[in-house]
Amino acid sequence: MEVLISADGAKVLGEGLTQIDAVTPILFQRDGTLTRDGAPVPREDINPKGTWLSLDILMSKRVFDYVDLVLNTPSIEWVQSTAAGFDHPLFAELAKKGIRLTNSDAQSVAIAEYVLGSVLAEYQRTTERQLKQSEKKWEGLSVREIANTRWMIVGIGNIGNETAIRARAFGAHVIGVKRTGASAHADETIRPADMMSRLGECDVVVFTSPLNDQTRHMGNAAYFAAMKEGATFVNIGRGGLVDETALLEALDKSRPALAILDVFETEPLPTESALWAHPNVRITPHASSRSNGTPIRAQQLFLKNLAAFAKGDPLHNEVPAAQIIGAA
Amino acid sequence: MEVLISADGAKVLGEGLTQIDAVTPILFQRDGTLTRDGAPVPREDINPKGTWLSLDILMSKRVFDYVDLVLNTPSIEWVQSTAAGFDHPLFAELAKKGIRLTNSDAQSVAIAEYVLGSVLAEYQRTTERQLKQSEKKWEGLSVREIANTRWMIVGIGNIGNETAIRARAFGAHVIGVKRTGASAHADETIRPADMMSRLGECDVVVFTSPLNDQTRHMGNAAYFAAMKEGATFVNIGRGGLVDETALLEALDKSRPALAILDVFETEPLPTESALWAHPNVRITPHASSRSNGTPIRAQQLFLKNLAAFAKGDPLHNEVPAAQIIGAA
Repeated sequence: MEVLISADGAKVLGEGLTQIDAVTPILFQRDGTLTRDGAPVPREDINPKGTWLSLDILMSKRVFDYVDLVLNTPSIEWVQSTAAGFDHPLFAELAKKGIRLTNSDAQSVAIAEYVLGSVLAEYQRTTERQLKQSEKKWEGLSVREIANTRWMIVGIGNIGNETAIRARAFGAHVIGVKRTGASAHADETIRPADMMSRLGECDVVVFTSPLNDQTRHMGNAAYFAAMKEGATFVNIGRGGLVDETALLEALDKSRPALAILDVFETEPLPTESALWAHPNVRITPHASSRSNGTPIRAQQLFLKNLAAFAKGDPLHNEVPAAQIIGAA
Repeated sequence: MEVLISADGAKVLGEGLTQIDAVTPILFQRDGTLTRDGAPVPREDINPKGTWLSLDILMSKRVFDYVDLVLNTPSIEWVQSTAAGFDHPLFAELAKKGIRLTNSDAQSVAIAEYVLGSVLAEYQRTTERQLKQSEKKWEGLSVREIANTRWMIVGIGNIGNETAIRARAFGAHVIGVKRTGASAHADETIRPADMMSRLGECDVVVFTSPLNDQTRHMGNAAYFAAMKEGATFVNIGRGGLVDETALLEALDKSRPALAILDVFETEPLPTESALWAHPNVRITPHASSRSNGTPIRAQQLFLKNLAAFAKGDPLHNEVPAAQIIGAA
């Protein structure tokens, strides 16, 4: 069975790839040409059944050329993404062709560390402490504990669960919000319809939802007005979940008092956005998943799914086509 | 039964104090005078059996007057401290008189949050991220995860266990070092004699030991030379555990690459210390326990122990006299 991967992706997989029986890699080289067993091969001569949208592809401009190749290679039945989101129109195009999509939970650990690290940096007054040090001032600051705070994790899935595990180890009470089922790691799981009535008790609210018609601008003026005064708001889902104009107005009323944002309605965030210089906004450039651990887990997930696909076993993290088409 | 407490301490205890049967508080007023049932009472007319070294006393200069009173009040059988340490010579004086001492674990949660927050601030490159934001630069930074790191917690007790719980929730492997017994929260517990041979595998080393003849200058040149290159060193125990001159030299060799220090050989840390301005040293002024939660837990512990003392039940966190006298 042939599988399409980037030459750089194959390099990071190393030995792992050769350990799966009867897999022939078709390598997408940096110049856009293809090779099989070290020799060039024309596009019309390949028959890959699966492909990996590896990080090196997703993070480069070559992604457009790669995706064009995937869409024009009729043999492809399965695409493994390295991202969690599937709201990009490309994925709907794949789904409409009957191609199966598996998304990635490889970034969950990194994002959970980002959330805890960002909240702790504020609670622990890290910047103020460093300022005191730079002034050689021996002046202790009293800080706020995560212990006994209440968290709401909206759209609790892989990322939300990893966040819940860590927040609860600190003694936080975690309310997960989920359309169906219950989170195994939250203290309680509620439905979206019950979210507004519970917002007022939460010290930290984290958006981890996928973006779709139901979730677009979920964070609006009414939502923020229902928050607890002084609360912290974190968005590591999608920028479209939040009405940024409403958020800026809400920050003036301390509901929330602080916004930790990794995603934005327009990315890169335009320099003229008032968010950049707002004293109560912490900005990272859609980078919460970038860590030393994410690429390793992404490789492991692809190899696990490739082995499963080759054997005809169920795939991990398969996203139903209807969900993908609905999100676009 | 009479109990000696500061007027401010009694205020924070509020209702809690009146709920313990047959306890009469002797209040130590801010001007150093004493009152019983609202009326002044001379020092020679009081018979308190227990006393609370509450935070307001410990953090003020009145502590000397208060301790003098305790040492000259022969009826006192038990002292509840609000600190974890018992190496101050005062405690040895109390122990030699046969007075029982209970120390406090109320600060453990706060200190554990400080340790995780401080390590995460570095791993997450919080300061660099904020600098990028201040320059409106949309540039993602790859960070280091706590997941799959190895931690050594030296002198693992209440503080170390709370730290271990949190680090392990992040996927760290925790080695506890303890003279006797095993930590219920570390992945493994080793003896001090085995510490040096395991240092080289640890990404984070945390000192939480009490200060005594065995632990003084435990962090010396040989110790740091045995660390893993690039490791993070945290001292929230006592300044005397570390030879600061050796630490400064060790930082130049990246063993450790970073030192997070809340305690120092001389406190306040003299302005001429090279630690203040060192780029790889993070300094807080013996303040890791200062949080909104610590005073509440300290009150709860005192009330729990007061009720136990009144009934003749065993006290929580009683420190054996020999240990106190040995530490001084």
